[in-house]
Amino acid sequence: MNPKVVGISSSLIRNVASRKRESSIDLGLGEPLLTPNVAHLDAAIEYVRKHGVRYTQNAGDPQLRAAIASHYRYPGLEQAENVCVTVGSQEAMYATLLALLDPARDELLVVEPAFPSYVKMAALDGVAARTVAMAEEEDFAIDAERIIAGIGERTRAIVLCSPCNPTGRAISTAQAHVLVRALERRGGTITLIHDEIYREQNFRERADLAQLYANTIAVNSLSKSNALTGLRLGWILGSAEFIEQATKVHAWATSCADTFAQRVALHIFEGNAVGEYAAWYRERVQAVIAALRESGLRFIEPDGAFYCCVKLPDGTSSLDAALKLIDEQDVVAIPGIAFGECFEGWLRLSWVAPMESLREGLARIVKFCDAHRAQSAAGTPHK
Amino acid sequence: MNPKVVGISSSLIRNVASRKRESSIDLGLGEPLLTPNVAHLDAAIEYVRKHGVRYTQNAGDPQLRAAIASHYRYPGLEQAENVCVTVGSQEAMYATLLALLDPARDELLVVEPAFPSYVKMAALDGVAARTVAMAEEEDFAIDAERIIAGIGERTRAIVLCSPCNPTGRAISTAQAHVLVRALERRGGTITLIHDEIYREQNFRERADLAQLYANTIAVNSLSKSNALTGLRLGWILGSAEFIEQATKVHAWATSCADTFAQRVALHIFEGNAVGEYAAWYRERVQAVIAALRESGLRFIEPDGAFYCCVKLPDGTSSLDAALKLIDEQDVVAIPGIAFGECFEGWLRLSWVAPMESLREGLARIVKFCDAHRAQSAAGTPHK
Repeated sequence: MNPKVVGISSSLIRNVASRKRESSIDLGLGEPLLTPNVAHLDAAIEYVRKHGVRYTQNAGDPQLRAAIASHYRYPGLEQAENVCVTVGSQEAMYATLLALLDPARDELLVVEPAFPSYVKMAALDGVAARTVAMAEEEDFAIDAERIIAGIGERTRAIVLCSPCNPTGRAISTAQAHVLVRALERRGGTITLIHDEIYREQNFRERADLAQLYANTIAVNSLSKSNALTGLRLGWILGSAEFIEQATKVHAWATSCADTFAQRVALHIFEGNAVGEYAAWYRERVQAVIAALRESGLRFIEPDGAFYCCVKLPDGTSSLDAALKLIDEQDVVAIPGIAFGECFEGWLRLSWVAPMESLREGLARIVKFCDAHRAQSAAGTPHK
Repeated sequence: MNPKVVGISSSLIRNVASRKRESSIDLGLGEPLLTPNVAHLDAAIEYVRKHGVRYTQNAGDPQLRAAIASHYRYPGLEQAENVCVTVGSQEAMYATLLALLDPARDELLVVEPAFPSYVKMAALDGVAARTVAMAEEEDFAIDAERIIAGIGERTRAIVLCSPCNPTGRAISTAQAHVLVRALERRGGTITLIHDEIYREQNFRERADLAQLYANTIAVNSLSKSNALTGLRLGWILGSAEFIEQATKVHAWATSCADTFAQRVALHIFEGNAVGEYAAWYRERVQAVIAALRESGLRFIEPDGAFYCCVKLPDGTSSLDAALKLIDEQDVVAIPGIAFGECFEGWLRLSWVAPMESLREGLARIVKFCDAHRAQSAAGTPHK
């Protein structure tokens, strides 16, 4: 077997989440409980009944590519040739990293806390990744100076998820300008890869990096915005030259995205429905913040995405806590350590679960933390 | 950019096929003109209307994995754990090659003529590929002795497409036994990767290598069997240990296959409908062979798949001929050179086009060949 593959650990997030029982309060996986708008599915159904499900071009249906490009209107990325339609944002990121980075020379800089797949995808291709940690004392705010300080000699690209999974922090316009000016002073050769998958769940100001910095690649999907996780429909927005190379990786890895999924996407973009759940999220986050305040736990107030993160008692292993939470309290939460060393001691909770589940989950986490503190105080050995 | 990606040429097949005009007789792409059975789509539609399209487990819906394993009943590969559901057979092959081969040590042996993606996928991961050519004088019959002779010291796996794209040749049971015995004498350490995508278009005896040789990985999809190319639904059948590693690659590259597509697949497997078009193909191939005989062209009689291959006049460049055929005769055919040096001088024709198109296409190819021979005879310089 390929030692690079054997050496990559399987997903800690999915491993923890898979322990869920029928009875569990599931604050684990990043999947909206909202149901998708059936109108989009119906449009695709009508199409496939009439036309079957034939291959599209590797880079996707030309009409869909054009619709995506003109929806975002990022400067210089406004044409169909600037889009490659992929199997979710997962493949979009995979093809981007593989096409962009030369394993012999380049290094990827990952802004942490971060979804673990960036580093693993890079590892799969033998690309070195370095990480730069945002600061706990600043509630992991996305800080341009810290990112710049993390750049190494071989850094060819920076991957930034904003709004961020797991922290819910989004880069502010002011910080985005600081970051972009610094990169421009360096000649603009470092590529910014903006993982925008939570773009439609952004509750404060939004900074689209592709609006500000020419050397940006944006990666996105319909999974979160339109509650279509299992549809596996994403895309890459980038220069035509880059898209040509990324499309090769995409073509050899998967050929093309599912035609049914592409028709769903076309209906969404042509109907300008990408943001159809944005108001629901904006309203919901207020209730979430209220529940977090009420819990008394230390938490990070979300700028975006649909996670909230809470701090465990000092010195607690987040993996240990997550496993015990399932065993003792029947609550599924994701351990911070899955998102980088700097996020140890935190738990990520998904708040797309019903509000009563979130409230009950928070109450049980409080109970768990209290018990843990009591045990520590009594000198009970930490298992 | 990644030089490994830049260095890989884009698909010659798609490049030639994309020159097709509205008026063209298209014998190019390997896509059945049959429409899919709407009953399968309806079952999936009913599901997604009710349940949305949520993520499945990375390796696929457990019910589907079990249904696939028990449909094929290959010895030792009969459980759900022996299946990873992928984004078409393209990703199945990609994940297989990445998980199986160590770029530092292993070499892949490709039996040619072959679909070009095997070599390109290996190249993307930095894995060396060697090729072994079947013999033109034997009409490219799949010959076990030749394959064995092609094995090098570092050969870790052999990839064999049977029935074969492009030649339509399938390995006979007798040849399969010769191959398997030789591999067993070598200790059974070399893995056979059987690309079975044309398994349901097999008009003579069928040899399923996974039935005969324990160290076999089978790769397949619904694209050809059920006219669902654009659905992007395939799978890998292999040892549980191997599937675990291949699933990692699949998980990091695409996460999981489309849930809609998985529901279509479940309906097909549970309804035992994988072979639903087999009779149509068996009938059609007789008419195809009659048309080929009538044309007077040298051709390879297909054992399976839905291609027929015809020989160009001696010394003709197949790429040159394919481009001129589009320009001068408005016929799209794929140049043999796309499938390896040994197939230069041949054209691959897809016979899933309407019969009258195939007949007219063959007539125009005859006209083209006659003109070319006349030009050569007259000493006209070959452009």
